[in-house]
Amino acid sequence: MTTRNHCQALDAQDPLAPLRTQFALPEGVIYLDGNSLGARPVAALARAQAVIAEEWGNGLIRSWNSAGWAELSQRLGNRLAPLIGARDGEVVITDTTSINLFKVLSAALTVQRNRAPNRKVIVSEASNFPTDLYIAEGLAELLQQGYSLRLVNSPDELPQAIDQDVAVVMLTHVNYKTGYMYDMQGLTSLTHECGALAIWDLAHSAGAVPIDLHQAGADYAIGCTYKYLNGGPGSQAFVWVNPALVDVVRQPLSGWFGHTRQFAMESHYAPSQGIARYLCGTQPITSLAMVECGLDIFAQTDMASLRAKSLALTDLFIGLVQARCAAHELTLITPREHARRGSHVSFEHPEGYAVIQALIARGVIGDYREPRIMRFGFTPLYTSFTEVWDAVEILGEILDRKTWDQPQFKVRNSVT
Amino acid sequence: MTTRNHCQALDAQDPLAPLRTQFALPEGVIYLDGNSLGARPVAALARAQAVIAEEWGNGLIRSWNSAGWAELSQRLGNRLAPLIGARDGEVVITDTTSINLFKVLSAALTVQRNRAPNRKVIVSEASNFPTDLYIAEGLAELLQQGYSLRLVNSPDELPQAIDQDVAVVMLTHVNYKTGYMYDMQGLTSLTHECGALAIWDLAHSAGAVPIDLHQAGADYAIGCTYKYLNGGPGSQAFVWVNPALVDVVRQPLSGWFGHTRQFAMESHYAPSQGIARYLCGTQPITSLAMVECGLDIFAQTDMASLRAKSLALTDLFIGLVQARCAAHELTLITPREHARRGSHVSFEHPEGYAVIQALIARGVIGDYREPRIMRFGFTPLYTSFTEVWDAVEILGEILDRKTWDQPQFKVRNSVT
Repeated sequence: MTTRNHCQALDAQDPLAPLRTQFALPEGVIYLDGNSLGARPVAALARAQAVIAEEWGNGLIRSWNSAGWAELSQRLGNRLAPLIGARDGEVVITDTTSINLFKVLSAALTVQRNRAPNRKVIVSEASNFPTDLYIAEGLAELLQQGYSLRLVNSPDELPQAIDQDVAVVMLTHVNYKTGYMYDMQGLTSLTHECGALAIWDLAHSAGAVPIDLHQAGADYAIGCTYKYLNGGPGSQAFVWVNPALVDVVRQPLSGWFGHTRQFAMESHYAPSQGIARYLCGTQPITSLAMVECGLDIFAQTDMASLRAKSLALTDLFIGLVQARCAAHELTLITPREHARRGSHVSFEHPEGYAVIQALIARGVIGDYREPRIMRFGFTPLYTSFTEVWDAVEILGEILDRKTWDQPQFKVRNSVT
Repeated sequence: MTTRNHCQALDAQDPLAPLRTQFALPEGVIYLDGNSLGARPVAALARAQAVIAEEWGNGLIRSWNSAGWAELSQRLGNRLAPLIGARDGEVVITDTTSINLFKVLSAALTVQRNRAPNRKVIVSEASNFPTDLYIAEGLAELLQQGYSLRLVNSPDELPQAIDQDVAVVMLTHVNYKTGYMYDMQGLTSLTHECGALAIWDLAHSAGAVPIDLHQAGADYAIGCTYKYLNGGPGSQAFVWVNPALVDVVRQPLSGWFGHTRQFAMESHYAPSQGIARYLCGTQPITSLAMVECGLDIFAQTDMASLRAKSLALTDLFIGLVQARCAAHELTLITPREHARRGSHVSFEHPEGYAVIQALIARGVIGDYREPRIMRFGFTPLYTSFTEVWDAVEILGEILDRKTWDQPQFKVRNSVT
């Protein structure tokens, strides 16, 4: 049996433990929702103050040059690139994940329209993060060219779903509900063998698991900086395009930041070479600047170390829950197999919503996703083994005592 | 002859003068570029600190509910609405102006595709802000349905250009180069008489001139909050749709924030009723929150008072430049007629770029736009009459002494 002492010993020997001091976490909270909104780097406050007081307040319009605002999306993209196996000049941080998906999906369909115009199917999975499906629907409806979505109900159905009609396979690397992680390289190969293009949404994997987009042979990738990357609430998303494809077509959200001569103010668009053509309009700078504070912390470690701790944390959590809460109706829906697991763990419970609310009331912050899913994110930069032990103990108490069966825990909020 | 004393007297009797203390402007600077990036409200720093330290740092994921992040785009939209003649629930602040233009132009073309499918022309002007034209080009190229842009070279050509082939007329209310202001109501009527829909870009007019979208009968409007509205560098843009049109079609950037049951996590999109369907992905919250600080200052005055002072400032500037700098090659390209003038004034000068750099070196911040245009923005919330006098005096000295003819003033930056 694992004890709390054992967890404390794991923390004492954890080489990543000192990084926690670089995050400003509130007292009395065990934060297991870094997969939804990452914790605040201590440095983010001073960085934002500098942007607001100095760069905006004193620099004013001059800061587009003097403070490097004009190049910020590219410069931060270069800092993020190593975390996903991308190279210098291949990533920009801009807009939202939804918007960036629209850009890359439009581009991919345009590439296919030129190469294989009869391919009209976009493959994804029914349990993909909804906004990804909505964006694909919106694009298909706009185009009126016969595009349709083909949604599989489980990863096993993919090999059969990817056939000669498929233009694009669009998947989220780590599923937001279950934490299931796809074999990116295998699926990309399968996609290519069939003549389709592969788009990977890395929202739940960037900063959480090692990713090598080049080795996987991916075509397009997008993702989010406000989860594991700790960029701040709603901080801008990233977009990567394989260099072999990036200059082949224009993406349709072609704003002035993507123009090759932005300040020539020409009346016709001429796309920049490379990933800069995936820029569009002026970015909210204060939010964008804080993304760097999260990346600064990643620069002090490496994804292999983070992954090792992440798997140790999720193994510990699964094991403790199954031991401590064996008497309760919890169903693990996250793969036990390391190669198929991201950095969050989900259990189903018939009263999952109320249990999560009761946990939050006790200071253990996880979140809830329809239907019945309790989701717990493990962020090796700041989650300790002892916190895992304590969280499970509190969960056990709530289940044993049926604390969740109080009316205040059943009131639905808009976001959990 | 107007004297500096006279300008000081105007400031002494200016009812808006006290509002300047609510902006943090640097010493030694005369800021005439609020049409490009508005000055910083003093309150923005504390607001951002609260978002970062309290809402993000301590509230963490709970702040989507407890700090009102989930509704922020709508709540701030309601606060902006009165400045543009819109009503409660008709405006959201989200994404960028370019992205919002893509949304409304797509929607407008979809409406026309259902009503009048043979209308394939988008009318705009060649000197429209480039990103607007690029977005229209990008959409037309994506659709592959025969859409084309018809660009007029001057406002006079519009009546002839708007014919039975036109689906949409897409204009910027105040031209970013010349400061020319369209007759929104007249042009919208002309557009409607011809069966087309009218999109207005209010980037250079929101917060600068009175606007009444309902009275004008406009169909769609977009605009920017980081110029006259002082929302912060790159702060999010706004979008308004006429209530008669808003529920008629889905816009294609249909992300989860536009879904009518966002957290039901359904796999098919069901658009919200009203302007919420123009939301897409998660917004950079720190930047968005600061928009409120600019709007708080507008709430202390009204657009009629601001317009009166704006015209007085621009009249004064034009008059003083033409008197003080009569010996130099300056050509006014901004209309003298009040009804056709926004809140910035532009002069052409053969060495406009270098003159602007020499002015900036003396603390007078205007900006430059190709070709040869020196642009000066007048922001009645914080620009004084005495500053106008001083700026013209410094311009006169630079021109008299040919200060601009020094090599350091001719080095091109990426942004000016």
